[in-house]
Amino acid sequence: MPKLVEYADAGPAVRAVYDAIMAARGTTEVNNFWKALAVDPPGLKRTWESLSQVMAPGVLSPVMKEMLYLAASMTSGCAYCTASHAAAARAKGMTDAEYGELLAIVGMAAETNRLAEALRVPVDPQFE
Amino acid sequence: MPKLVEYADAGPAVRAVYDAIMAARGTTEVNNFWKALAVDPPGLKRTWESLSQVMAPGVLSPVMKEMLYLAASMTSGCAYCTASHAAAARAKGMTDAEYGELLAIVGMAAETNRLAEALRVPVDPQFE
Amino acid sequence: MPKLVEYADAGPAVRAVYDAIMAARGTTEVNNFWKALAVDPPGLKRTWESLSQVMAPGVLSPVMKEMLYLAASMTSGCAYCTASHAAAARAKGMTDAEYGELLAIVGMAAETNRLAEALRVPVDPQFE
Amino acid sequence: MPKLVEYADAGPAVRAVYDAIMAARGTTEVNNFWKALAVDPPGLKRTWESLSQVMAPGVLSPVMKEMLYLAASMTSGCAYCTASHAAAARAKGMTDAEYGELLAIVGMAAETNRLAEALRVPVDPQFE
Amino acid sequence: MPKLVEYADAGPAVRAVYDAIMAARGTTEVNNFWKALAVDPPGLKRTWESLSQVMAPGVLSPVMKEMLYLAASMTSGCAYCTASHAAAARAKGMTDAEYGELLAIVGMAAETNRLAEALRVPVDPQFE
Amino acid sequence: MPKLVEYADAGPAVRAVYDAIMAARGTTEVNNFWKALAVDPPGLKRTWESLSQVMAPGVLSPVMKEMLYLAASMTSGCAYCTASHAAAARAKGMTDAEYGELLAIVGMAAETNRLAEALRVPVDPQFE
Repeated sequence: MPKLVEYADAGPAVRAVYDAIMAARGTTEVNNFWKALAVDPPGLKRTWESLSQVMAPGVLSPVMKEMLYLAASMTSGCAYCTASHAAAARAKGMTDAEYGELLAIVGMAAETNRLAEALRVPVDPQFE
Repeated sequence: MPKLVEYADAGPAVRAVYDAIMAARGTTEVNNFWKALAVDPPGLKRTWESLSQVMAPGVLSPVMKEMLYLAASMTSGCAYCTASHAAAARAKGMTDAEYGELLAIVGMAAETNRLAEALRVPVDPQFE
Repeated sequence: MPKLVEYADAGPAVRAVYDAIMAARGTTEVNNFWKALAVDPPGLKRTWESLSQVMAPGVLSPVMKEMLYLAASMTSGCAYCTASHAAAARAKGMTDAEYGELLAIVGMAAETNRLAEALRVPVDPQFE
Repeated sequence: MPKLVEYADAGPAVRAVYDAIMAARGTTEVNNFWKALAVDPPGLKRTWESLSQVMAPGVLSPVMKEMLYLAASMTSGCAYCTASHAAAARAKGMTDAEYGELLAIVGMAAETNRLAEALRVPVDPQFE
Repeated sequence: MPKLVEYADAGPAVRAVYDAIMAARGTTEVNNFWKALAVDPPGLKRTWESLSQVMAPGVLSPVMKEMLYLAASMTSGCAYCTASHAAAARAKGMTDAEYGELLAIVGMAAETNRLAEALRVPVDPQFE
Repeated sequence: MPKLVEYADAGPAVRAVYDAIMAARGTTEVNNFWKALAVDPPGLKRTWESLSQVMAPGVLSPVMKEMLYLAASMTSGCAYCTASHAAAARAKGMTDAEYGELLAIVGMAAETNRLAEALRVPVDPQFE
C-alpha cells in the first residue's frame, strides 16, 4: 500500500492543492490519487494545474473529454484511472449504451492496433 | 515491408471483403491495413465485419467514435492506426481545435496513468 | 541510426560472440541486433548465452519456440523482433496457414486482454 | 469490482451467448470475463463468436493455440487472461516443462524486444 | 509526416515558447518535438513549462535526470524520445560505459517485469 | 495466486539459487519473485545470474542502478517490481526528495513519450 497523505497530516503546500481540488469539484473529499501523489508536493501542484487546464471547458463537451480520458486509461491498462474516469464520465452524463460503445471501440482498437503493428503496415499516402 | 495483396492478385474470398470495404466507404481504393491482413483471409473477413459492427451508427456520433478510436490508437502507440484514424476523424468533422484537445487529453492521461500505477493507488470506494 | 559494430571493427570479446553466433547458426553473417548490442560487450555475451539456453532443444519443438517468441514480439510491438522471428519461424517450418492462425490469436488476445483489464474482471476461483 | 451479469438476471440476448459458451465447453458455468462483458450485449456476442472462430480446430493444435494466447496475454500484462489461458492450456495438455519453456521465452522476448527498440535496430534485408 | 510548425510560420504564442526553449538551451534551433506539438499552442506552453520544472536543477544531478528519462523512454518504446534523451544525456556527461550499464538495466528490468507479471507474484510484506 | 516454492519443498537446483541469493544479500529470506520463478529451475538460475551480473558494482553507483531499475519498472507498469525496487533503492540510500524527482521524471516521460509517438515526430539529424 502506498502512503496516502491525509489533510490533517499535510503541510501548507499540499493543503492548498487539496483545497483547490475540493473547491473545483464541490466536494469535501480528495480522492486517493492526489493523496498518494502528495509525497511529491511540487508534482502534486503541477499535475493538478495541468489536469485542470486540460479538462477545463473547451470545444469538446465535458462528458466527451472524460470518455476520451477513459479510453486512453483503459488502453494503457491503468485500473485506478479506468475506475475513476468511468465514474467521472458517468457523473457527467455517459449512459450505459455510450459506455458499451466506448468499450467496444477500445477492444476493437486493441485488436487492429496490434495487427497493424504485427504486419508492419506502411502508412498510405492519403493519410499523410 | 509486409506483403500487400492487391485486388488483381486476390482470390474470391479476399475480393469479396475488398468489395464490401469499397462499397461501404464509397471509394475505389482499399487501404494498406486490409491488403496486409489479406494474408489471413478468414481474419480479414472477421476483422472487417467486427469493425463495421463496432463503427456502425449508434448512440455516439461517427466523429466521436473515430476520436475514441484515435485516442486508443495513440495510447497503444500504433503509428499506422494513429495516421489512419486521424484522417478518418478529420473526414468526419474533427476540427483542429478538437484535435488539439484530444492530444492534450491523451498526453495527460499517459502521465496520470503512469503515476497512478507507479504509486499503486488503491481505488476509492466511491468509484466502485 | 544506431551504431552497428562490424566484425572488422570489433574487439576480441565481441568477435568471440560473433563467432559463436555464426557457428551456432551455420552462417557467415551476424544480424543487426547483435551488431547494435555490441556497444555493451558484456551485455552482448550475456544476452547471446541466455538466448541460446532458452532456445536450445527442449520439450517444445524449435518451430513452436519461434512461434511463441513471435507472438510475444508482436504483442510487445517490436518491429525488428517481429521481422526477425517471423523469418526464423518460417525457416524452421512455420507454414502460411500456421502464420495466419498465429496472427489471428495475437489479434484476438489483444482485444480480450484489453477488455478484461478495462472491465477489471476478478479471476475465477477455478483458474487459481 | 465490475458488475457481473448472472444468468438469472440476464436478458435473452445475453442468455443465448451464455448457453452457447456452456454448450461449447461442456460446463454449467460461465467464467467472469463473459459475465463482465455482458454489460455490452452486442459486444458479448461478437467477442464470443470471434473467439470461437479463432480458437476452432485448425492447423495448429488446441494446446498450441492456448499457449500462443497465453504468451500474448503474459506479454500484454493481463492478469486475468494469464490465469484463464494458463488454466485452459493445462486442461488441453500443457505440461509443467512446457510451461517452464514458455515462461522463459516470454521473459527472454521481453528483454530482447526492449533492447531492439532501445537500440532502434534497422531490420536486416534478409528478414524482409 | 506530421506538420512541423517553423518559427517563421508561428503565431506569437508559439514563438514565445520557441524563444524560451532556445534561451534555456543556448541554441538557435528548436527540435522537432516542439515543432510538432505546436499544433496545440496551449499544450506546447504547458508541456514546456512542466518539462522545465521537472528537469530543473534539483537533488539529482542533470545527467542522472536525463538517464532516468532515457530509461523510461526506452521502456515505453518511444524511438524519438530515446534518440533525443540519449543525445541529451551524452551532452550532460553520460559515458559509453554508463550507457552500456543503463541499457543492461533496461533490458533486465523488461525481463523481470514481464516474469513478475506473468507469474502474478504477490508483493512481499517487507516491501510495503 | 501463483505457486511459491518454499526452501523446505525445493530440490537441490532451486536450493542452490536460494542459497546464493541469501548469501549475496546477507539475509535469511528469499523474496516471492524467486519463489514463483522456481517453477522453472533453469530460468531461476539464469535470471538470478544475469541479474547479479547487471546489478554488480560498475561505473554507476548501486543506488543509481536501483533508481534506473525502478524507473523502468514503473514505466512498464509492474506493481511487484515497483514495490521491490523502490524498497531496494531506499535501502541503498534513495531519499524522499530523490524519489519525488524520479517520480516526476517518470510521469513527464510518459506524457512526452506518448505525445511524440502520437505526433509521429521525425528524429532530428543532430540526435543521430
